[in-house]
Amino acid sequence: MSKPNLVPKPVEDMAAALSSLPGIGPKLANRIAIYLAVRGKGQINSLTSGLVSLERDVQECRNCRNLTSNSDTCLICLDVDRDKTKVLVVETPLDLVQIERTEKFRGLYFVVGALLSPLNGIGPKDIGIDLLEERIAKDLVDEVIFGLGSSVESEATALFISEQLSKKYPEVKFTRLAQGLSAGVSLEYVDTNSLSDAITHRTSLL
Amino acid sequence: MSKPNLVPKPVEDMAAALSSLPGIGPKLANRIAIYLAVRGKGQINSLTSGLVSLERDVQECRNCRNLTSNSDTCLICLDVDRDKTKVLVVETPLDLVQIERTEKFRGLYFVVGALLSPLNGIGPKDIGIDLLEERIAKDLVDEVIFGLGSSVESEATALFISEQLSKKYPEVKFTRLAQGLSAGVSLEYVDTNSLSDAITHRTSLL
Repeated sequence: MSKPNLVPKPVEDMAAALSSLPGIGPKLANRIAIYLAVRGKGQINSLTSGLVSLERDVQECRNCRNLTSNSDTCLICLDVDRDKTKVLVVETPLDLVQIERTEKFRGLYFVVGALLSPLNGIGPKDIGIDLLEERIAKDLVDEVIFGLGSSVESEATALFISEQLSKKYPEVKFTRLAQGLSAGVSLEYVDTNSLSDAITHRTSLL
Repeated sequence: MSKPNLVPKPVEDMAAALSSLPGIGPKLANRIAIYLAVRGKGQINSLTSGLVSLERDVQECRNCRNLTSNSDTCLICLDVDRDKTKVLVVETPLDLVQIERTEKFRGLYFVVGALLSPLNGIGPKDIGIDLLEERIAKDLVDEVIFGLGSSVESEATALFISEQLSKKYPEVKFTRLAQGLSAGVSLEYVDTNSLSDAITHRTSLL
Protein backbone atom coordinates (compact mmCIF):
# COMPACT_ATOMS: atom_id res chain seq x y z
CA MET A 1 0.00 0.00 0.00
CA SER A 2 1.54 3.28 -1.01
CA LYS A 3 -1.15 5.29 0.79
CA PRO A 4 -1.87 4.50 4.43
CA ASN A 5 -5.44 3.75 5.47
CA LEU A 6 -6.56 2.90 1.97
CA VAL A 7 -7.40 -0.62 3.08
CA PRO A 8 -8.34 -1.64 6.63
CA LYS A 9 -5.49 -2.74 8.91
CA PRO A 10 -6.60 -6.43 9.09
CA VAL A 11 -6.54 -6.62 5.29
CA GLU A 12 -3.07 -5.08 5.22
CA ASP A 13 -1.85 -7.52 7.89
CA MET A 14 -3.26 -10.46 5.95
CA ALA A 15 -1.51 -9.27 2.79
CA ALA A 16 1.77 -9.03 4.70
CA ALA A 17 1.39 -12.59 6.03
CA LEU A 18 0.58 -13.90 2.54
CA SER A 19 3.50 -12.16 0.87
CA SER A 20 5.91 -14.07 3.11
CA LEU A 21 4.93 -17.29 1.29
CA PRO A 22 6.89 -18.60 -1.69
CA GLY A 23 5.56 -17.48 -5.07
CA ILE A 24 3.33 -14.73 -3.67
CA GLY A 25 4.50 -11.17 -4.29
CA PRO A 26 3.04 -8.05 -2.66
CA LYS A 27 0.56 -7.40 -5.49
CA LEU A 28 -0.93 -10.89 -5.46
CA ALA A 29 -0.96 -10.89 -1.63
CA ASN A 30 -2.95 -7.69 -1.68
CA ARG A 31 -5.37 -9.05 -4.23
CA ILE A 32 -5.96 -12.25 -2.25
CA ALA A 33 -6.40 -10.38 1.06
CA ILE A 34 -9.06 -8.10 -0.45
CA TYR A 35 -10.70 -11.05 -2.19
CA LEU A 36 -10.95 -12.92 1.13
CA ALA A 37 -12.32 -9.86 2.92
CA VAL A 38 -14.98 -9.29 0.26
CA ARG A 39 -16.41 -12.71 -0.33
CA GLY A 40 -14.22 -15.28 1.28
CA LYS A 41 -16.15 -16.25 4.45
CA GLY A 42 -16.35 -19.89 3.36
CA GLN A 43 -12.77 -19.86 2.16
CA ILE A 44 -11.54 -18.20 5.34
CA ASN A 45 -12.96 -21.14 7.30
CA SER A 46 -11.45 -23.80 5.07
CA LEU A 47 -8.07 -22.05 5.12
CA THR A 48 -8.14 -21.64 8.90
CA SER A 49 -9.02 -25.26 9.52
CA GLY A 50 -6.45 -26.33 6.92
CA LEU A 51 -3.74 -24.41 8.74
CA VAL A 52 -4.75 -25.80 12.12
CA SER A 53 -4.66 -29.36 10.83
CA LEU A 54 -1.35 -28.77 9.07
CA GLU A 55 0.22 -27.69 12.35
CA ARG A 56 -1.45 -30.36 14.49
CA ASP A 57 -1.39 -33.45 12.27
CA VAL A 58 1.70 -33.25 10.11
CA GLN A 59 5.13 -34.28 11.31
CA GLU A 60 8.49 -35.43 10.00
CA CYS A 61 8.95 -39.10 9.19
CA ARG A 62 11.40 -40.47 11.76
CA ASN A 63 13.09 -42.56 9.11
CA CYS A 64 13.52 -40.17 6.14
CA ARG A 65 12.25 -36.74 7.32
CA ASN A 66 9.55 -36.67 4.64
CA LEU A 67 6.15 -35.34 5.74
CA THR A 68 3.74 -37.74 7.38
CA SER A 69 0.43 -37.63 9.22
CA ASN A 70 -1.28 -40.08 11.61
CA SER A 71 1.93 -42.10 11.99
CA ASP A 72 5.54 -41.30 12.81
CA THR A 73 6.70 -43.06 9.64
CA CYS A 74 5.73 -41.92 6.13
CA LEU A 75 3.85 -44.07 3.64
CA ILE A 76 6.88 -44.50 1.41
CA CYS A 77 9.03 -45.84 4.26
CA LEU A 78 6.16 -48.13 5.34
CA ASP A 79 5.86 -49.63 1.83
CA VAL A 80 7.43 -53.09 2.12
CA ASP A 81 7.75 -53.42 -1.67
CA ARG A 82 10.36 -50.72 -1.87
CA ASP A 83 14.09 -51.36 -1.96
CA LYS A 84 15.60 -50.17 1.34
CA THR A 85 19.15 -50.53 0.09
CA LYS A 86 18.87 -47.51 -2.24
CA VAL A 87 18.48 -44.07 -0.68
CA LEU A 88 17.79 -40.99 -2.77
CA VAL A 89 18.73 -37.77 -0.98
CA VAL A 90 16.53 -34.74 -1.80
CA GLU A 91 16.30 -31.25 -0.36
CA THR A 92 12.53 -30.99 0.28
CA PRO A 93 9.40 -33.16 0.32
CA LEU A 94 8.36 -31.32 -2.86
CA ASP A 95 11.45 -32.67 -4.67
CA LEU A 96 10.47 -36.13 -3.46
CA VAL A 97 7.02 -35.72 -5.02
CA GLN A 98 8.63 -34.67 -8.31
CA ILE A 99 10.78 -37.80 -8.37
CA GLU A 100 7.88 -40.08 -7.40
CA ARG A 101 5.95 -38.75 -10.42
CA THR A 102 8.54 -40.27 -12.74
CA GLU A 103 7.77 -43.75 -11.30
CA LYS A 104 11.42 -44.58 -12.03
CA PHE A 105 12.67 -44.99 -8.49
CA ARG A 106 11.57 -47.77 -6.13
CA GLY A 107 14.00 -47.20 -3.28
CA LEU A 108 13.57 -44.96 -0.22
CA TYR A 109 14.36 -41.30 0.34
CA PHE A 110 16.13 -39.04 2.74
CA VAL A 111 15.09 -35.38 3.04
CA VAL A 112 17.94 -33.10 4.11
CA GLY A 113 15.56 -30.13 4.49
CA ALA A 114 18.22 -27.56 3.61
CA LEU A 115 21.59 -27.33 1.91
CA LEU A 116 24.78 -26.81 3.91
CA SER A 117 25.38 -23.13 4.36
CA PRO A 118 27.83 -22.17 7.11
CA LEU A 119 27.03 -18.47 6.61
CA ASN A 120 23.37 -19.10 7.41
CA GLY A 121 24.24 -21.39 10.29
CA ILE A 122 23.19 -24.59 8.53
CA GLY A 123 25.61 -27.35 9.45
CA PRO A 124 25.80 -31.17 9.27
CA LYS A 125 23.42 -31.62 12.26
CA ASP A 126 20.68 -29.61 10.53
CA ILE A 127 20.71 -31.75 7.42
CA GLY A 128 20.34 -34.90 9.53
CA ILE A 129 23.57 -36.63 8.64
CA ASP A 130 23.44 -38.76 11.84
CA LEU A 131 20.02 -40.12 10.90
CA LEU A 132 21.21 -40.91 7.38
CA GLU A 133 24.20 -42.75 8.82
CA GLU A 134 21.91 -44.84 11.05
CA ARG A 135 19.85 -45.71 8.00
CA ILE A 136 22.90 -46.94 6.11
CA ALA A 137 23.85 -49.28 8.96
CA LYS A 138 20.33 -50.49 9.74
CA ASP A 139 19.03 -51.04 6.18
CA LEU A 140 22.33 -52.28 4.66
CA VAL A 141 22.18 -49.44 2.15
CA ASP A 142 24.46 -50.04 -0.86
CA GLU A 143 23.78 -46.85 -2.84
CA VAL A 144 23.16 -43.24 -1.86
CA ILE A 145 21.90 -41.18 -4.81
CA PHE A 146 22.02 -37.39 -4.61
CA GLY A 147 19.12 -35.53 -6.19
CA LEU A 148 19.93 -32.12 -4.80
CA GLY A 149 20.03 -30.06 -8.00
CA SER A 150 23.14 -28.47 -9.43
CA SER A 151 23.84 -25.25 -7.55
CA VAL A 152 27.15 -24.69 -5.80
CA GLU A 153 25.48 -25.41 -2.43
CA SER A 154 23.97 -28.66 -3.72
CA GLU A 155 27.33 -29.86 -4.98
CA ALA A 156 29.01 -28.93 -1.69
CA THR A 157 26.32 -30.70 0.35
CA ALA A 158 26.48 -33.88 -1.75
CA LEU A 159 30.26 -33.90 -1.62
CA PHE A 160 30.32 -33.34 2.15
CA ILE A 161 27.84 -36.12 2.88
CA SER A 162 29.56 -38.62 0.61
CA GLU A 163 33.01 -37.82 2.03
CA GLN A 164 31.81 -38.20 5.62
CA LEU A 165 29.95 -41.43 5.02
CA SER A 166 32.43 -43.13 2.71
CA LYS A 167 35.00 -43.09 5.52
CA LYS A 168 32.79 -45.35 7.60
CA TYR A 169 31.09 -47.24 4.78
CA PRO A 170 33.62 -47.65 1.97
CA GLU A 171 31.44 -50.29 0.29
CA VAL A 172 28.53 -47.89 -0.31
CA LYS A 173 28.26 -46.32 -3.78
CA PHE A 174 27.60 -42.57 -3.89
CA THR A 175 25.98 -41.39 -7.12
CA ARG A 176 24.09 -38.39 -8.42
CA LEU A 177 21.34 -37.76 -10.95
CA ALA A 178 22.61 -37.30 -14.50
CA GLN A 179 23.13 -33.79 -15.78
CA GLY A 180 22.64 -32.90 -19.40
CA LEU A 181 19.99 -31.92 -21.89
CA SER A 182 16.33 -31.68 -20.91
CA ALA A 183 13.96 -34.07 -22.67
CA GLY A 184 12.72 -32.77 -26.01
CA VAL A 185 14.86 -29.64 -25.99
CA SER A 186 16.44 -28.22 -29.13
CA LEU A 187 20.16 -27.36 -28.86
CA GLU A 188 19.49 -23.81 -29.88
CA TYR A 189 17.81 -23.08 -26.54
CA VAL A 190 20.19 -24.86 -24.17
CA ASP A 191 22.30 -22.69 -21.87
CA THR A 192 26.07 -23.03 -22.07
CA ASN A 193 26.52 -24.72 -18.68
CA SER A 194 23.99 -27.44 -19.44
CA LEU A 195 25.52 -28.02 -22.84
CA SER A 196 28.95 -28.20 -21.28
CA ASP A 197 27.68 -30.78 -18.74
CA ALA A 198 26.05 -32.74 -21.54
CA ILE A 199 29.36 -32.95 -23.39
CA THR A 200 31.32 -33.97 -20.29
CA HIS A 201 28.83 -36.68 -19.37
CA ARG A 202 28.12 -37.91 -22.89
CA THR A 203 26.97 -41.54 -23.02
CA SER A 204 27.80 -44.26 -25.49
CA LEU A 205 25.14 -45.00 -28.10
CA LEU A 206 25.89 -48.61 -29.07
CA MET B 1 -1.49 -34.87 -6.78
CA SER B 2 -1.53 -37.47 -9.50
CA LYS B 3 -0.63 -40.28 -7.07
CA PRO B 4 -2.71 -40.67 -3.95
CA ASN B 5 -0.95 -40.73 -0.56
CA LEU B 6 2.18 -39.10 -1.87
CA VAL B 7 1.66 -36.22 0.52
CA PRO B 8 -0.22 -36.42 3.82
CA LYS B 9 -3.94 -35.65 3.70
CA PRO B 10 -3.70 -32.37 5.67
CA VAL B 11 -1.13 -31.07 3.19
CA GLU B 12 -3.37 -32.05 0.29
CA ASP B 13 -6.37 -30.36 1.92
CA MET B 14 -4.36 -27.21 2.50
CA ALA B 15 -3.26 -27.18 -1.14
CA ALA B 16 -6.89 -27.56 -2.24
CA ALA B 17 -7.96 -24.63 -0.05
CA LEU B 18 -5.13 -22.48 -1.38
CA SER B 19 -5.83 -23.25 -5.03
CA SER B 20 -9.33 -21.82 -4.65
CA LEU B 21 -7.76 -18.36 -4.20
CA PRO B 22 -7.26 -16.01 -7.14
CA GLY B 23 -3.84 -16.20 -8.77
CA ILE B 24 -2.87 -19.51 -7.12
CA GLY B 25 -2.85 -22.54 -9.40
CA PRO B 26 -2.56 -26.16 -8.23
CA LYS B 27 1.24 -26.26 -8.56
CA LEU B 28 1.86 -23.15 -6.49
CA ALA B 29 -0.78 -24.28 -3.96
CA ASN B 30 1.06 -27.55 -3.56
CA ARG B 31 4.39 -25.82 -3.15
CA ILE B 32 3.04 -23.44 -0.49
CA ALA B 33 1.29 -26.24 1.44
CA ILE B 34 4.48 -28.31 1.59
CA TYR B 35 6.51 -25.22 2.46
CA LEU B 36 4.18 -24.45 5.38
CA ALA B 37 4.27 -28.05 6.60
CA VAL B 38 8.06 -28.17 6.51
CA ARG B 39 9.10 -24.93 8.13
CA GLY B 40 6.14 -22.67 8.44
CA LYS B 41 5.17 -22.91 12.14
CA GLY B 42 5.63 -19.16 12.64
CA GLN B 43 3.90 -18.38 9.38
CA ILE B 44 1.03 -20.75 10.15
CA ASN B 45 0.35 -18.70 13.27
CA SER B 46 0.47 -15.33 11.54
CA LEU B 47 -1.76 -16.59 8.72
CA THR B 48 -4.28 -18.09 11.15
CA SER B 49 -4.53 -14.94 13.24
CA GLY B 50 -4.70 -12.85 10.05
CA LEU B 51 -7.65 -14.90 8.81
CA VAL B 52 -9.43 -14.70 12.15
CA SER B 53 -9.06 -10.92 12.29
CA LEU B 54 -10.14 -10.58 8.65
CA GLU B 55 -13.36 -12.40 9.42
CA ARG B 56 -13.99 -10.69 12.77
CA ASP B 57 -12.93 -7.10 12.15
CA VAL B 58 -13.62 -6.29 8.53
CA GLN B 59 -17.06 -5.32 7.25
CA GLU B 60 -18.69 -3.49 4.36
CA CYS B 61 -19.00 0.30 4.57
CA ARG B 62 -22.70 1.04 4.98
CA ASN B 63 -22.39 3.99 2.65
CA CYS B 64 -20.32 2.69 -0.29
CA ARG B 65 -19.74 -1.04 0.37
CA ASN B 66 -15.96 -0.57 0.46
CA LEU B 67 -14.09 -2.53 3.16
CA THR B 68 -13.83 -1.00 6.62
CA SER B 69 -12.71 -2.03 10.10
CA ASN B 70 -13.49 -0.60 13.55
CA SER B 71 -16.31 1.54 12.15
CA ASP B 72 -19.35 0.93 9.96
CA THR B 73 -18.25 3.65 7.56
CA CYS B 74 -15.00 3.53 5.58
CA LEU B 75 -12.26 6.16 5.87
CA ILE B 76 -12.96 7.54 2.41
CA CYS B 77 -16.63 8.16 3.19
CA LEU B 78 -15.66 9.72 6.55
CA ASP B 79 -13.25 12.17 4.86
CA VAL B 80 -15.07 15.54 4.94
CA ASP B 81 -12.73 17.02 2.33
CA ARG B 82 -14.08 14.78 -0.40
CA ASP B 83 -16.77 15.80 -2.85
CA LYS B 84 -19.93 13.82 -2.06
CA THR B 85 -21.67 14.90 -5.26
CA LYS B 86 -19.44 12.71 -7.46
CA VAL B 87 -19.74 8.94 -7.13
CA LEU B 88 -17.36 6.58 -8.92
CA VAL B 89 -18.80 3.08 -9.32
CA VAL B 90 -16.25 0.24 -9.18
CA GLU B 91 -16.57 -3.53 -9.07
CA THR B 92 -14.29 -4.34 -6.12
CA PRO B 93 -12.38 -2.61 -3.30
CA LEU B 94 -9.20 -3.51 -5.21
CA ASP B 95 -10.35 -1.37 -8.16
CA LEU B 96 -10.98 1.44 -5.69
CA VAL B 97 -7.39 1.16 -4.44
CA GLN B 98 -6.14 1.34 -8.04
CA ILE B 99 -8.08 4.54 -8.67
CA GLU B 100 -6.99 6.10 -5.37
CA ARG B 101 -3.37 5.57 -6.40
CA THR B 102 -3.82 7.98 -9.31
CA GLU B 103 -4.76 10.75 -6.82
CA LYS B 104 -6.97 12.12 -9.59
CA PHE B 105 -10.36 11.58 -8.01
CA ARG B 106 -11.59 13.38 -4.90
CA GLY B 107 -15.21 12.24 -4.87
CA LEU B 108 -16.66 9.17 -3.18
CA TYR B 109 -17.10 5.59 -4.40
CA PHE B 110 -19.69 2.91 -4.69
CA VAL B 111 -18.63 -0.75 -4.82
CA VAL B 112 -21.07 -2.97 -6.74
CA GLY B 113 -19.22 -6.14 -5.70
CA ALA B 114 -20.15 -8.04 -8.86
CA LEU B 115 -21.35 -7.39 -12.37
CA LEU B 116 -24.92 -8.17 -13.41
CA SER B 117 -25.14 -11.74 -14.58
CA PRO B 118 -28.64 -13.24 -14.75
CA LEU B 119 -27.20 -16.66 -15.59
CA ASN B 120 -25.24 -16.68 -12.34
CA GLY B 121 -28.16 -15.30 -10.39
CA ILE B 122 -26.64 -11.84 -9.89
CA GLY B 123 -29.39 -9.26 -10.19
CA PRO B 124 -29.95 -5.56 -9.34
CA LYS B 125 -30.38 -6.27 -5.60
CA ASP B 126 -26.95 -7.93 -5.41
CA ILE B 127 -25.14 -4.96 -6.87
CA GLY B 128 -26.78 -2.66 -4.30
CA ILE B 129 -28.70 -0.40 -6.65
CA ASP B 130 -31.09 0.64 -3.83
CA LEU B 131 -28.23 1.85 -1.68
CA LEU B 132 -26.77 3.78 -4.61
CA GLU B 133 -30.15 5.40 -5.21
CA GLU B 134 -30.33 6.48 -1.55
CA ARG B 135 -26.88 8.04 -1.89
CA ILE B 136 -27.96 10.07 -4.90
CA ALA B 137 -30.92 11.52 -3.00
CA LYS B 138 -29.10 12.07 0.29
CA ASP B 139 -25.83 13.54 -1.00
CA LEU B 140 -27.31 15.50 -3.93
CA VAL B 141 -25.07 13.55 -6.31
CA ASP B 142 -24.71 15.26 -9.69
CA GLU B 143 -22.42 12.77 -11.47
CA VAL B 144 -22.13 8.99 -11.41
CA ILE B 145 -18.91 7.81 -13.08
CA PHE B 146 -18.60 4.16 -14.10
CA GLY B 147 -15.18 2.58 -13.67
CA LEU B 148 -16.22 -1.01 -14.30
CA GLY B 149 -13.81 -1.97 -17.06
CA SER B 150 -14.80 -2.73 -20.62
CA SER B 151 -16.13 -6.28 -20.77
CA VAL B 152 -19.63 -7.00 -22.09
CA GLU B 153 -20.86 -7.51 -18.49
CA SER B 154 -19.34 -4.20 -17.36
CA GLU B 155 -21.06 -2.35 -20.20
CA ALA B 156 -24.37 -4.03 -19.45
CA THR B 157 -24.11 -3.26 -15.74
CA ALA B 158 -23.25 0.41 -16.31
CA LEU B 159 -26.04 0.77 -18.86
CA PHE B 160 -28.59 -0.89 -16.59
CA ILE B 161 -27.72 1.28 -13.57
CA SER B 162 -27.75 4.50 -15.55
CA GLU B 163 -31.06 3.67 -17.25
CA GLN B 164 -32.72 2.82 -13.93
CA LEU B 165 -31.44 5.87 -12.10
CA SER B 166 -31.88 8.44 -14.85
CA LYS B 167 -35.62 7.80 -14.81
CA LYS B 168 -35.81 9.11 -11.23
CA TYR B 169 -32.91 11.56 -11.38
CA PRO B 170 -32.85 13.07 -14.88
CA GLU B 171 -30.52 15.86 -13.72
CA VAL B 172 -27.68 13.47 -12.77
CA LYS B 173 -24.89 13.00 -15.34
CA PHE B 174 -23.81 9.40 -16.02
CA THR B 175 -20.27 9.11 -17.38
CA ARG B 176 -17.60 6.45 -17.78
CA LEU B 177 -13.81 6.34 -17.72
CA ALA B 178 -12.21 7.10 -21.08
CA GLN B 179 -11.18 4.20 -23.27
CA GLY B 180 -8.22 4.43 -25.58
CA LEU B 181 -4.48 3.98 -25.68
CA SER B 182 -2.52 3.08 -22.56
CA ALA B 183 0.00 5.66 -21.39
CA GLY B 184 3.38 5.32 -23.11
CA VAL B 185 2.31 2.56 -25.46
CA SER B 186 3.57 2.30 -29.04
CA LEU B 187 0.84 1.76 -31.68
CA GLU B 188 2.55 -1.36 -32.89
CA TYR B 189 1.55 -3.22 -29.72
CA VAL B 190 -2.03 -2.01 -29.32
CA ASP B 191 -4.81 -4.56 -29.88
CA THR B 192 -7.39 -3.82 -32.54
CA ASN B 193 -10.29 -3.20 -30.14
CA SER B 194 -8.37 -0.65 -28.10
CA LEU B 195 -7.20 1.09 -31.25
CA SER B 196 -10.74 1.14 -32.56
CA ASP B 197 -11.96 2.69 -29.27
CA ALA B 198 -9.16 5.23 -29.42
CA ILE B 199 -10.28 6.31 -32.89
CA THR B 200 -13.95 6.54 -31.91
CA HIS B 201 -13.20 8.58 -28.80
CA ARG B 202 -10.46 10.77 -30.29
CA THR B 203 -10.08 14.14 -28.56
CA SER B 204 -9.35 17.55 -29.99
CA LEU B 205 -5.80 18.80 -29.65
CA LEU B 206 -6.21 22.56 -29.79
